[in-house]
Amino acid sequence: MASMSTAFPKTTPFLSHPLTKSDSLIATTVSFPSSSRSRSLRRATLRVRSALIEPDGGKLMELVVPEPRRREKKHEAADLPRVKLTAIDLQWMHVLSEGWASPLRGFMREAEFLQTLHFNSLRLDDGSVVNMSVPIVLAIDDEQKALIGESKRVALVDSDDNPIAILSDIEIYKHPKEERIARTWGTTAPGLPYAEEAIANAGNWLIGGDLEVLEPVKYNDGLDRFRLSPFELRKELEKRGADAVFAFRLRNPVHNGHALLMTDTRRRLLEMGYKNPILLLHPLGGFTKADDVPLSWRMKQHEKVLEDGVLDPETTVVSIFPSPMLYAGPTEVQWHAKARINAGANFYIVGRDPAGMGHPVEKRDLYDADHGKKVLSMAPGLERLNILPFRVAAYDKTQGKMAFFDPSRAQDFLFISGTKMRGLAKNKESPPDGFMCPGGWKVLVDYYDSLSLSGNARLPEKIPV
Amino acid sequence: MASMSTAFPKTTPFLSHPLTKSDSLIATTVSFPSSSRSRSLRRATLRVRSALIEPDGGKLMELVVPEPRRREKKHEAADLPRVKLTAIDLQWMHVLSEGWASPLRGFMREAEFLQTLHFNSLRLDDGSVVNMSVPIVLAIDDEQKALIGESKRVALVDSDDNPIAILSDIEIYKHPKEERIARTWGTTAPGLPYAEEAIANAGNWLIGGDLEVLEPVKYNDGLDRFRLSPFELRKELEKRGADAVFAFRLRNPVHNGHALLMTDTRRRLLEMGYKNPILLLHPLGGFTKADDVPLSWRMKQHEKVLEDGVLDPETTVVSIFPSPMLYAGPTEVQWHAKARINAGANFYIVGRDPAGMGHPVEKRDLYDADHGKKVLSMAPGLERLNILPFRVAAYDKTQGKMAFFDPSRAQDFLFISGTKMRGLAKNKESPPDGFMCPGGWKVLVDYYDSLSLSGNARLPEKIPV
Repeated sequence: MASMSTAFPKTTPFLSHPLTKSDSLIATTVSFPSSSRSRSLRRATLRVRSALIEPDGGKLMELVVPEPRRREKKHEAADLPRVKLTAIDLQWMHVLSEGWASPLRGFMREAEFLQTLHFNSLRLDDGSVVNMSVPIVLAIDDEQKALIGESKRVALVDSDDNPIAILSDIEIYKHPKEERIARTWGTTAPGLPYAEEAIANAGNWLIGGDLEVLEPVKYNDGLDRFRLSPFELRKELEKRGADAVFAFRLRNPVHNGHALLMTDTRRRLLEMGYKNPILLLHPLGGFTKADDVPLSWRMKQHEKVLEDGVLDPETTVVSIFPSPMLYAGPTEVQWHAKARINAGANFYIVGRDPAGMGHPVEKRDLYDADHGKKVLSMAPGLERLNILPFRVAAYDKTQGKMAFFDPSRAQDFLFISGTKMRGLAKNKESPPDGFMCPGGWKVLVDYYDSLSLSGNARLPEKIPV
Repeated sequence: MASMSTAFPKTTPFLSHPLTKSDSLIATTVSFPSSSRSRSLRRATLRVRSALIEPDGGKLMELVVPEPRRREKKHEAADLPRVKLTAIDLQWMHVLSEGWASPLRGFMREAEFLQTLHFNSLRLDDGSVVNMSVPIVLAIDDEQKALIGESKRVALVDSDDNPIAILSDIEIYKHPKEERIARTWGTTAPGLPYAEEAIANAGNWLIGGDLEVLEPVKYNDGLDRFRLSPFELRKELEKRGADAVFAFRLRNPVHNGHALLMTDTRRRLLEMGYKNPILLLHPLGGFTKADDVPLSWRMKQHEKVLEDGVLDPETTVVSIFPSPMLYAGPTEVQWHAKARINAGANFYIVGRDPAGMGHPVEKRDLYDADHGKKVLSMAPGLERLNILPFRVAAYDKTQGKMAFFDPSRAQDFLFISGTKMRGLAKNKESPPDGFMCPGGWKVLVDYYDSLSLSGNARLPEKIPV
């Protein structure tokens, strides 16, 4: 196994100067922030309210109408022009309502949309900059636009036409679909899962405004207890007395390579002097592409991993990140990181090709596997976050376990990609011993069993009410 | 004609807050900076050397080897692996060598390239941000890459294989063509002039490094006297005692609508208390698409406009901006503005659909006509520049002259696009009286005459040595 000091050398500065040297951004070297920098961050925020990193813009947006005013607001909503939300629109509404995208107060108006497309960031009133790399927008068609007319407010309604939110001080502007796709994904090739699902057939207009959500969003799928809002997460992290919070995002089952990385990060944080680093294991809960493992099965798998002792429940918070998945690589990983700041994380683990996928048309990965961590380390508005890029973990045949890849003895390692892992589980083959805890693997096999029982189609996931 | 106060209302703040209000960015309203802001800028820079705005990064990059060391450098270059430059590569080398792209020191390395693609800006060592929206990169193919081998330096050579520059401390990285095009143009549709000319058939690698150019770039086309470098322009502007410099960029012949705008801007600057505002009339000199009027003819036309007294030679500097044209709309207009800061301009005039063109495949403009000025007013690194968006000028039939368009009597106005103007000149038809000074119009007619004489092909332009 590669030594720990190789995995996290201390020689590379946290953020290298892009104009003079880019060598320090090379993929296989890994930077770890100096503890003094992190300490001063903690000191600075202590005065505010807690030891946790401050949300973007200084204040967590909470856009759910407080209980006493709900009745009145529902009454108001009943009389407004209506915009029907799709399942993905609802997920974004959920994201906005809990402040994951703070300081956004609702679906983007054009000035925010343009800044997101061109700069991956928003400039605030005070001149400061926050990261915002993916458009959080709501599309409407010509007919809906005509129905809205001159109204400055609309009601957002669910699939049963029940009003669930109010959008105020609205702005309607053109939806430049091709440009949105090109600038978000760096390609316009057909077959991008999110673009096909949520953009291609969407309306030609976007509607932005200030959001008020009438009730907290619930999905009633048995997983709501895992859906902690940034506010709830911060409370939980404070309750546990976290003095460092490191986030690990994923949309796949956890294998022992992931676990190695998470436990190793914790060990390093302890070495740096933190007393109680807490891991936020934060699987994505919104839209995913058809061949990914559905959320409910992933959550079962994550529970097994904790039960089997691969990760320590005492120092781990498992929660669901309600965002849809864009598969937009370097652009999307910024969103994933930014949202975790708002949830209280000040360390963010990033691996090979984050939020990437195969090119939908060409036989290659859509993104350079190293661009995600490079872009993340240079992204405006993320300077406060300690980015932890890591070396890829692989199955070390000489040790019979997952270990950091050592290029000097490449032949000893076996790479098991998500696709390969899913293939093995589908065919009820076993991965090598030590790849994943047995309980976790069984969940995967069960999932593919259930698929073949139901005619090989993906099980439908519940859609929020 | 629209009143001056309508054209430049003072009520709108210079830079509106994107998160709370975007109304102030609406196209038809126009913002004019408060004079106090500009004054304090001038005061701040006075101590440095002159009253002109400071170059990006604080220092103008001048990458031409000083005379005494040229011989030695040429000697060194002779022994290095060679990279042959295309005509467009040479134009970028010219741009870099004179510091238009300051603080860039040469063709971009990957960290700069990625920041440009994702953030349209670069973060400097001191944490400050400069704008940089278009990639200035040099492509090489597999064969050239193999020839370079382990060398840390290469010689850049012209079409006759003469070394003209050295690139040092080089970095070679993948050229993600599709992604570069998508993120720069917001489309990947076939038919983008620059992409077809300079990217589609370029090599699969990019080479970045520090540039040293062996001799000042000359084109020997009779126009070199108009090619003032940022350093020379600053000297000229200081010699004239400019206390405000307003830049007008264009790639088309000057008509009286342009002239109206330029003279009106000067009048306004005088009203604001400036004593000697100087206009930098700054036509683009590099690559343009086939149906644009070539540089040499445009320069003849601009000379006529000055001779005919439409613009005042005393307060106007005409110079050529050596950059190639990308037709990348909101992305490119930032580059056009940033480069003029480096040349000493602190006011920048921006019109409808800057750097735009028709969509290469669909029957529409590629960009929303208002996005250019909106994006420019929010662009990171351009906060120091006073952006002057303006209402479109059109031919007012009731007055028989060009005037600011007044939507309340739209029927009185005639819009004469670049395409229409070229069509009229091609067919030797006259535009309405007052559209363009007669001397200037004659140049255009002569150009299309010369075209039909030469078989309707565009006249070749000289390529720099």
